[in-house]
Amino acid sequence: MDEKDISRAVIQRLPRYYRYLGELIDDNVERISSSDLSSRMKVTASQIRQDLNNFGGFGQQGYGYNVRYLHSEIAKILGLDRTYHMIIIGAGNLGQALANYTRFEKQGFQLMGIFDVNPLLKGVSVRGLEIRMVDELPDFLKEHKIEIATLTLPKTKAVEMAELLVANGVKAIWNFAHTDLNLFVPDDVIVENVHLSESLMRLSYNLSRYEKEHKQD
Amino acid sequence: MDEKDISRAVIQRLPRYYRYLGELIDDNVERISSSDLSSRMKVTASQIRQDLNNFGGFGQQGYGYNVRYLHSEIAKILGLDRTYHMIIIGAGNLGQALANYTRFEKQGFQLMGIFDVNPLLKGVSVRGLEIRMVDELPDFLKEHKIEIATLTLPKTKAVEMAELLVANGVKAIWNFAHTDLNLFVPDDVIVENVHLSESLMRLSYNLSRYEKEHKQD
Repeated sequence: MDEKDISRAVIQRLPRYYRYLGELIDDNVERISSSDLSSRMKVTASQIRQDLNNFGGFGQQGYGYNVRYLHSEIAKILGLDRTYHMIIIGAGNLGQALANYTRFEKQGFQLMGIFDVNPLLKGVSVRGLEIRMVDELPDFLKEHKIEIATLTLPKTKAVEMAELLVANGVKAIWNFAHTDLNLFVPDDVIVENVHLSESLMRLSYNLSRYEKEHKQD
Repeated sequence: MDEKDISRAVIQRLPRYYRYLGELIDDNVERISSSDLSSRMKVTASQIRQDLNNFGGFGQQGYGYNVRYLHSEIAKILGLDRTYHMIIIGAGNLGQALANYTRFEKQGFQLMGIFDVNPLLKGVSVRGLEIRMVDELPDFLKEHKIEIATLTLPKTKAVEMAELLVANGVKAIWNFAHTDLNLFVPDDVIVENVHLSESLMRLSYNLSRYEKEHKQD
């Protein structure tokens, strides 16, 4: 399959397919038809066939998709067929929550270090890793090849930290700070911003719209 | 303005406008031109004019947009012109992190309670609220009108909890459990799923794609 031929819209949907296929593997399901996958995912079977046809028609008429094969092909597209070395900067509740997600490690995101500025946190162990102080970070980055840094920092500290990380070879930032960090780093640094407050606004939008429509009945 | 005339694509972009306008208010900026907003947000000025024209052309030639007015109009669309009573179920690191975001409260999401099943957490105070046990939840929901429940629970507990919440009048769920909870509740319950692992996959996709393209040079 040629990755360049897969549309952006399909790529956007792949993580969800990957998640459902992973659940099927956990349930020891070897094959699944597009109609069974359709009823699980509440997506039309024709959409599923269209999307998964991008991977060379692994679905066979009356036979279904090979779950493991499809899962591993999607993993390749998503860059999940390798290991990434990751650090977390900001060891507050959110940083510790992310450090404790063992799922990320299973997907190849290996946590190499957790950093904070709060001396009270120094040496505190999170899932076997002792929290280090941020001033150790430059040396740490010289000694370890780190591809991804997760930032769970206040907005006011995030830009300066991103610059330090980029200067020390970090290629990608998973940003939870309340700012569009991609606007502050070079174009060749990958940034994925997670804006939780925008998610909550989508919820309030849908809730208030529903209530307004309901009132009009 | 008639909300129904605003396209879904514009609605999707509103939280970001709302965030930038909020920052301008914090910086005591009263008016802003589409070109200044354009350079801040890295969106074309014509896109901004097109999007904000939906709100009745508050931008005046050579004068710019009235920041507070636009902010409050967008707030109305997003359902942020009122207060929501919210609870958090799951008082682990993620639940406590969300409880500590004072920003949500400023936007009208008032935290009324935090619940967990772990007796060690009973009575522990998070931002002035004592963690309650989940078995108190049905009585609590009868005594308090709660619109939004935030679920920071394991996937295996999320569906059952959602059913209990819906049966007790909760109208909206902000779901961090690793499942598409909208598939398990009635259609009139609003669900906003936050799938952090999908966000991390978008990052690995972009990072691996960049590296592959770079290698080909």
